[in-house]
Amino acid sequence: MTQQGTLIVLSGFSGAGKGTVVKELLSRYDNYALSVSATTRKPREGEVDGREYFFKSREEFLQMIEKNMLIEYAEYVNNYYGTPKEYVIKQLEAGKNIILEIEIQGALNIKKQFPDAILMFITPPDGRELEKRLYGRGTEDDATVRARLKRAYEEADYAGSYDYIVVNDDLDECVSTINSIIESEKYRASKKLSLIQNIKKDLERFN
Amino acid sequence: MTQQGTLIVLSGFSGAGKGTVVKELLSRYDNYALSVSATTRKPREGEVDGREYFFKSREEFLQMIEKNMLIEYAEYVNNYYGTPKEYVIKQLEAGKNIILEIEIQGALNIKKQFPDAILMFITPPDGRELEKRLYGRGTEDDATVRARLKRAYEEADYAGSYDYIVVNDDLDECVSTINSIIESEKYRASKKLSLIQNIKKDLERFN
Repeated sequence: MTQQGTLIVLSGFSGAGKGTVVKELLSRYDNYALSVSATTRKPREGEVDGREYFFKSREEFLQMIEKNMLIEYAEYVNNYYGTPKEYVIKQLEAGKNIILEIEIQGALNIKKQFPDAILMFITPPDGRELEKRLYGRGTEDDATVRARLKRAYEEADYAGSYDYIVVNDDLDECVSTINSIIESEKYRASKKLSLIQNIKKDLERFN
Repeated sequence: MTQQGTLIVLSGFSGAGKGTVVKELLSRYDNYALSVSATTRKPREGEVDGREYFFKSREEFLQMIEKNMLIEYAEYVNNYYGTPKEYVIKQLEAGKNIILEIEIQGALNIKKQFPDAILMFITPPDGRELEKRLYGRGTEDDATVRARLKRAYEEADYAGSYDYIVVNDDLDECVSTINSIIESEKYRASKKLSLIQNIKKDLERFN
């Protein structure tokens, strides 16, 4: 029997390198999958329905909300984005560790619905490094970077509500650590109760 | 700064191979240490005070109880056995993962005093294997083995109160898994709060 996969919720400061971490996890291990979001925004060139996103009309999306088919959703620049429950559950049952890369409020909500989900917060080693990385991108003006840094300052208060905090300094090490945490979580007593029940059954005649 | 070590409480069915697992952990990794118990029983030939046990008079031991110097203690065949708090705390501060091999009731008590302690339950893969190992020792009569198997049946109900349940089928794998769990636990958010506080300090000027 395939052991159920783990739902991994990944958040972190803008500039922590979450995207790179996720890409590396997916390429290095074959039992990870990325959650595919539903969205009402129009597909861009090259985007495939069911790969980048499940593309939905506004009406379809509202229906998904109503029928409780989304684990979480948010509106952003006039478009809806959400995580379809069915897709996530199917992947978990197939033994995949499924990664949801979402922001903090959504992450904490998911823990309420999926208590077995592992909440992981990715961070650079220190604030100066975060600053360096955000300015280093060179794609945003000073005001935008400063706004992101202010936001990181505020978000820091929520990091303690996650299950694990992992520093992304060395990418290889960070990805190995995440995988090791996920593997270790499979030995949680709450996930081994059927093993213990079987042993009890084996030993019943000695009671 | 050395990161604080982890207090590991190891229990499991008689016949699960806890002793071998501990020996292998200590020989394979240099950041593990075994807790040294205090006892009122007389030293046997070759036993060294502070290595096998801290040997105490009955009076000294009762004073240790009274002064709350023991994490846990029990009386067994007219002798006291207990875990000196000071020794454990010193080892943890030195960054050692300290292993306490104790029975179930004691283990659950320790979690109350040391909420960061990791409770690990070691088990053979199934009941038949447990039976085979206990009979295989060939050192105990049938009645004793049957009593141990009955006890295992009863103890199974407590396994779910542990943090992790690890099967000792392949010794190498079991020991690697335990180490991996202990390493992963060091990334618990509750143990990374000073890192986050430092980042907040670095980013304060953007607020």
